[in-house]
Amino acid sequence: MINTAINISKVSESKFTSIDLDNVTFGTIYTDHMFFCDFKDGEWQQPQITPYQPLQLDPSARVFHYGQAAFEGMKAYKDEHGDAWIFRPEENWKRINFSARRLAMPEVPEEVFMNGLKTLLEMDKQWIVPGKGNSLYIRPFLFATEAGVSAAPAAEYKFMIICTPVQAYYKGGEVKVKISDYFSRAANGGVGATKAAGNYAASFYPTNKVKEEGYQQIIWTNSTHEYLEEAGTMNVFFRIGDKLLTAPTDDRILDGVTRKSLIQLAKDEGIEVEVRKVSVKEVTEAARKGELKEVFGAGTAAVVVPITGVGYQDEHFDLPKLDNPYSTMLKEKLLNIQYNITEDKYNWTQKI
Amino acid sequence: MINTAINISKVSESKFTSIDLDNVTFGTIYTDHMFFCDFKDGEWQQPQITPYQPLQLDPSARVFHYGQAAFEGMKAYKDEHGDAWIFRPEENWKRINFSARRLAMPEVPEEVFMNGLKTLLEMDKQWIVPGKGNSLYIRPFLFATEAGVSAAPAAEYKFMIICTPVQAYYKGGEVKVKISDYFSRAANGGVGATKAAGNYAASFYPTNKVKEEGYQQIIWTNSTHEYLEEAGTMNVFFRIGDKLLTAPTDDRILDGVTRKSLIQLAKDEGIEVEVRKVSVKEVTEAARKGELKEVFGAGTAAVVVPITGVGYQDEHFDLPKLDNPYSTMLKEKLLNIQYNITEDKYNWTQKI
Ligand SMILES: Cc1ncc(COP(=O)(O)O)c(C=O)c1O
Ligand SMILES: Cc1ncc(COP(=O)(O)O)c(C=O)c1O
Repeated sequence: MINTAINISKVSESKFTSIDLDNVTFGTIYTDHMFFCDFKDGEWQQPQITPYQPLQLDPSARVFHYGQAAFEGMKAYKDEHGDAWIFRPEENWKRINFSARRLAMPEVPEEVFMNGLKTLLEMDKQWIVPGKGNSLYIRPFLFATEAGVSAAPAAEYKFMIICTPVQAYYKGGEVKVKISDYFSRAANGGVGATKAAGNYAASFYPTNKVKEEGYQQIIWTNSTHEYLEEAGTMNVFFRIGDKLLTAPTDDRILDGVTRKSLIQLAKDEGIEVEVRKVSVKEVTEAARKGELKEVFGAGTAAVVVPITGVGYQDEHFDLPKLDNPYSTMLKEKLLNIQYNITEDKYNWTQKI
Repeated sequence: MINTAINISKVSESKFTSIDLDNVTFGTIYTDHMFFCDFKDGEWQQPQITPYQPLQLDPSARVFHYGQAAFEGMKAYKDEHGDAWIFRPEENWKRINFSARRLAMPEVPEEVFMNGLKTLLEMDKQWIVPGKGNSLYIRPFLFATEAGVSAAPAAEYKFMIICTPVQAYYKGGEVKVKISDYFSRAANGGVGATKAAGNYAASFYPTNKVKEEGYQQIIWTNSTHEYLEEAGTMNVFFRIGDKLLTAPTDDRILDGVTRKSLIQLAKDEGIEVEVRKVSVKEVTEAARKGELKEVFGAGTAAVVVPITGVGYQDEHFDLPKLDNPYSTMLKEKLLNIQYNITEDKYNWTQKI
């Protein structure tokens, strides 16, 4: 039996006070410590927390060649009393294991994930800055470390958690999206529903293409490009009239934690939510008739991102500026739960 | 201007003589040196050759999170006079740059690739063991090294070449394949035509599934699962009657160097080759009527792999044992060119 207690080695001095958080680019500064646990000889080894530091890998390590790698994204928030909270962490744990299975990687035991997460956050708690909009972005990830370029699942892996302070992801700025009529991020029977590293690499070039046309993100479509699936790295909602539409999750679409939380909150507000295939045709027709009132993206990083315009082929539709959009209302409701400001009736949050 | 001359640091003593090549597992032993060239500040830096050694990377390096990584596979062969040869290397150079563009990575300059390849092989020449079947497998690869978990193309990359001695890839053993009617390796408008690392991770689980049913490889199909595309990590040929069929390359299918060389060699032999969509229906119908005479995979690693049986849903078709199969004949013709045994009328080979 492997020892599951975390072997901890602390920094001698935190670098926290030397960092000007107001002037850091997202994802460039990491907290004092990192958590990791290696998988080898068929089992998870003793978990460790060490000062944040570089990794050593053989040039033939599988992750460089065959892309066995998946990640999660979650956040920790601090409330007015100085208590720190995490949001639905069991969803991220389940999802990294869903990704792991589909990529033929070993699943991360619940204890390794949860204990690692909580211990690391406890140690680096001062990095969770209070104030709505401030949070600590948490990046659990799993990848193949075994040396040897043979195209088969590796026998050795590393699961890690690193953390980076964050303010707002899409700092201001309009977000206009273009509907893809050529590129795809996911195949039927493929890995689109996982947070496989390779999905993101595949999305950059198509995203660059729409950027050249003045858009910020792409709306991914199914293999025939008839149905709307995700917006960039977010799930996407459409408001037609007073109804909210979003695609069902399947093997191409990520089962987003934000998406499922917003569906619940919208229903609680008495909004009619239809979870079903949403066609390009109905959305563009609604836009032409002025019935497309809102489009917004949903994801942990940016929470809710209102979209101001949608392009499809040679057409462009600007969305109306509403006084009380669903997007703002739902975002506030979600943030209020995450920051422990309102009641958390579904027990979504956990105190560190 | 960056200095493009390779900065070389040699091992003090080669480990070659201490290694028992007859008893090494493919891809576990690397030659004495490795080649690398870093991309940063918008340009390729001075290329280097050093003793083979581990890499240091930040845990937030993009390759672990967003999978920007692609590779190539090629081989060096030694002829009876002790001269070493490489096969159509410009195809691999073009293809890694095709992969690079689609994954939003910088293209590797021809000089960096070719000069690096030739200098490294010159230095590690003794590792190319003479004798048909023996070769040195060469692995060029490119991946994102920049630190920082923001889902966007990285600004820093590493291009490397490492080499590993190889005998036969599928050492003996039957290869039976199962036609996929659910899983896919590639999306329309996706990255299937590239050697993106993520494509391979995505293929392991479906391959494991067919292994559980007694098959060694999967035959990938298109998004509707009606057309046959590739076999495992090889292109695939079907012989119906005396005609050879193989799918055209498109954005889902890798444009294999072996595939295109075999098409040429088959035509030279007067074999009718049809490069067109090959349906599951026609292949299974031909199999039922006894007209499916051969199926074989084609790729650098295994050259030509005869397939002995094909499964589709609940059916299984064993292929006949022919006296003079196309697969053996074409493989011999190709190997004879690669090992400088016969005339190389298309100038495919280059001397080191
Ligand atoms: C492709 C994709 N879709 C949707 C989401 C949203 O998921 P979540 O709300 O769990 O962050 C993410 C991750 O943030 C994503 O990468
Ligand atoms: C998916 C895939 N198809 C086909 C091939 C064959 O290509 P090549 O003949 O250039 O090695 C490879 C690589 O070996 C591959 O990875």
